[in-house]
Amino acid sequence: MAANTRFAVAIHAAAVLAMNADGYVTSESIASSVNTNPVVIRRILRALTQAGLVESQIGKSGGSRLARPPERITLLDIFKAVEFDGLFGLPDKPENKRCHVSCGMKQILTDVFEDSQKSVESRLKRTTLAQLVKPLN
Amino acid sequence: MAANTRFAVAIHAAAVLAMNADGYVTSESIASSVNTNPVVIRRILRALTQAGLVESQIGKSGGSRLARPPERITLLDIFKAVEFDGLFGLPDKPENKRCHVSCGMKQILTDVFEDSQKSVESRLKRTTLAQLVKPLN
Repeated sequence: MAANTRFAVAIHAAAVLAMNADGYVTSESIASSVNTNPVVIRRILRALTQAGLVESQIGKSGGSRLARPPERITLLDIFKAVEFDGLFGLPDKPENKRCHVSCGMKQILTDVFEDSQKSVESRLKRTTLAQLVKPLN
Repeated sequence: MAANTRFAVAIHAAAVLAMNADGYVTSESIASSVNTNPVVIRRILRALTQAGLVESQIGKSGGSRLARPPERITLLDIFKAVEFDGLFGLPDKPENKRCHVSCGMKQILTDVFEDSQKSVESRLKRTTLAQLVKPLN
C-alpha cells in the first residue's frame, strides 16, 4: 500500500506560501509547484485554513497566504492540520470476549501507538516552516 | 482516510504466538483472537515468516510459532516486517523544473521524513514482544 502523501503536499504548499510571504498565492500557482491538480491543493488549503495556519482572499489578486509568520508554524502544526487519523490504525472490529489476549490487546496497542505518535510529534515540533525553507533562500 | 491497521494486526498475531510458546498455533486460532478473517492472518504470517520472526509447520497439529524467543523480537522487527512503505509518502510526480521551491522540496521532505521515521523506529526498538505481552500474563 502506498503511504499517504497528504502531509508531503501540505508541507510543500506551506513552503510555497512561506517563500511568497508578501502576497496572496493562487492554488493554481501552488499546484504548478507541487505538480498536481489545483483541486488537491484547494483541499489541503482548506485543512490548513481550518487549523488557522492559512488565510484566503477571494476575487482578483486573491489567493492564500500564511496566517502567521513561518517562524511560528511548526511541521507539527501542519501534520495535525492534515493527518487527523494518527500514524497507525487500530482495527475497528470488537474484541473477542472469550479470548484473554484479545481483551487486553486494544489497551496495549493504544499505549504503544500513542507513544510512537508522540515521538514523531516531538520531532516535528522542533522544525519551523521558516527553518524548513531556509535551504531554498 | 483510515490509517493502516496491518501493524496492529501483526502485533496482535505475534502476541498470540508469544502467549502460546509451547506449540504451533493455527491461523484460524489467531484470526479468532484478532476477530478477522484467517486470510488476513495468513498474509501477515507470511510477512512475519519472510522477516524470520515466525516459522510454520504444515499438516495435522501444524501451524505457526515464533522463530525466536519473544525477548529477542522487538516491535521494530514486527514494524519492518509489515510496513515496508514508511510512515509518510512522497508524491510520485516529478518536480517542476522551472520552480525553485519544487526543485528543492524533495530533498527537504526526504530528510524530514527519514528523521521522523527514525524517531518512531527508535521508540519501537525499545519494546520487546516479551515486554508487550507481560500485562497479559
